[in-house]
Amino acid sequence: MKITLLGSGNVATHLGKALQEKGHTIVQVWSRSIENAIELATQLLAEGVNTFEAILPDADVYIIAVSDTAIGDIAKAFPFRDKLLVHTSGTTGLEVLESASERIGVFYPLQTFSKQRPLNFKIIPIAIEARDIQIENVLRDLASSISETTVVFDSQKRKALHVAAVFACNFSNHLYSIADGILKDSGLDFSLLRPLIEETASKVQSFFPHEVQTGPAVRNDQMTINKHVEFFKERPELEEIYRLISQNIINFYQKA
Amino acid sequence: MKITLLGSGNVATHLGKALQEKGHTIVQVWSRSIENAIELATQLLAEGVNTFEAILPDADVYIIAVSDTAIGDIAKAFPFRDKLLVHTSGTTGLEVLESASERIGVFYPLQTFSKQRPLNFKIIPIAIEARDIQIENVLRDLASSISETTVVFDSQKRKALHVAAVFACNFSNHLYSIADGILKDSGLDFSLLRPLIEETASKVQSFFPHEVQTGPAVRNDQMTINKHVEFFKERPELEEIYRLISQNIINFYQKA
Repeated sequence: MKITLLGSGNVATHLGKALQEKGHTIVQVWSRSIENAIELATQLLAEGVNTFEAILPDADVYIIAVSDTAIGDIAKAFPFRDKLLVHTSGTTGLEVLESASERIGVFYPLQTFSKQRPLNFKIIPIAIEARDIQIENVLRDLASSISETTVVFDSQKRKALHVAAVFACNFSNHLYSIADGILKDSGLDFSLLRPLIEETASKVQSFFPHEVQTGPAVRNDQMTINKHVEFFKERPELEEIYRLISQNIINFYQKA
Repeated sequence: MKITLLGSGNVATHLGKALQEKGHTIVQVWSRSIENAIELATQLLAEGVNTFEAILPDADVYIIAVSDTAIGDIAKAFPFRDKLLVHTSGTTGLEVLESASERIGVFYPLQTFSKQRPLNFKIIPIAIEARDIQIENVLRDLASSISETTVVFDSQKRKALHVAAVFACNFSNHLYSIADGILKDSGLDFSLLRPLIEETASKVQSFFPHEVQTGPAVRNDQMTINKHVEFFKERPELEEIYRLISQNIINFYQKA
């Protein structure tokens, strides 16, 4: 298929590369910044543009891959009422595109995109949503060409998936950062934790997380919890996170 | 070396197996419950006992592997003043063993132990602490026989390591459980998140977590954050965790 990317950030970059590798053609890359547009377009053998007037009608699919707050503005300015236009947001509804085109959809790849790291798109679930069945089939074909897992979700289900991903990925990664800070404060190196982090994620590839929960809170070991709280006496914001998650664990397993 | 295990839980089980595989002899397994003692002892070709009188003086090292709250009681009852006695706790100081023996230490393997899952001890850091240099050398040899990473930490550093591990492992795993619950409530399956969890942990094997943080909070995307908060309007305890960690991420990256 011929694809034009509207956006030049992490999602546009990884998605563009994955699509191109599977034989799709990236026609243009649009970005507000012409430098960013050209930089990504060059990698994808496409044309970089920064005005809506310069967007060609040649693509089969126009993929908006920008931050959620900017989707509406791009939809307003999108020049073609009859072209298939999709966004890549987990939390934004399909309706944000309604004023832009009669052919709209969502193409949400569930992954954490960092520019510095290559990704295997094959194992990334892609949640699609479409205005009608014909569009759904187009998006399903496109998704299946790069990923082994395509699911069709309405906006509410997609939002649940995105929120769950924020906990499982974004928040977990921030807990790694907090742990890194705790170690640094004691002159210790983050590398000590790497095998533990790997094992923790690896465990839940074959178990449900509640089956393999460990640590003081799941044992309701108040002695250890109190010692840890004491450890944070000069870091009230960490003490609060520690207390809140520990209490949530205690409640979770007492109910279970 | 000849080793006696005091305890029969996850840590005793995994540690006993790893030591035996490397050629050490497990002499006895003590547990308050004779059934548990015999069950683990049978796996380790050792004798299972449940009284302190039955503990033989034949071992070179006596390893207490029980919950932190129970260490003190076992130390009080330990029958040999001249035998090397260690505990395996991250947060308990060395001094809890002082009344028990003149030869004491700590042998803390940094990992999440679940009985249902085998472990590769080689990549598990072991933090040791010892009353004197002779004991330190014994423990260093023992640790090096099963792990590639042995570190000598005082009780304060070991506590920092344990607290950091609670964030990076126990709390992360609980966030996976929360995510699982969010998906279940929408009729979705946890398997959708598994590649994302794997990738999140995999990223920090070669980067620091703050280098690869993604999600709405690090972008200070209040529109998405507000939609997610709205998603939790009937789950105040999850809303509170969502708000607190998101705010901590925002503060963290504004400072940085």
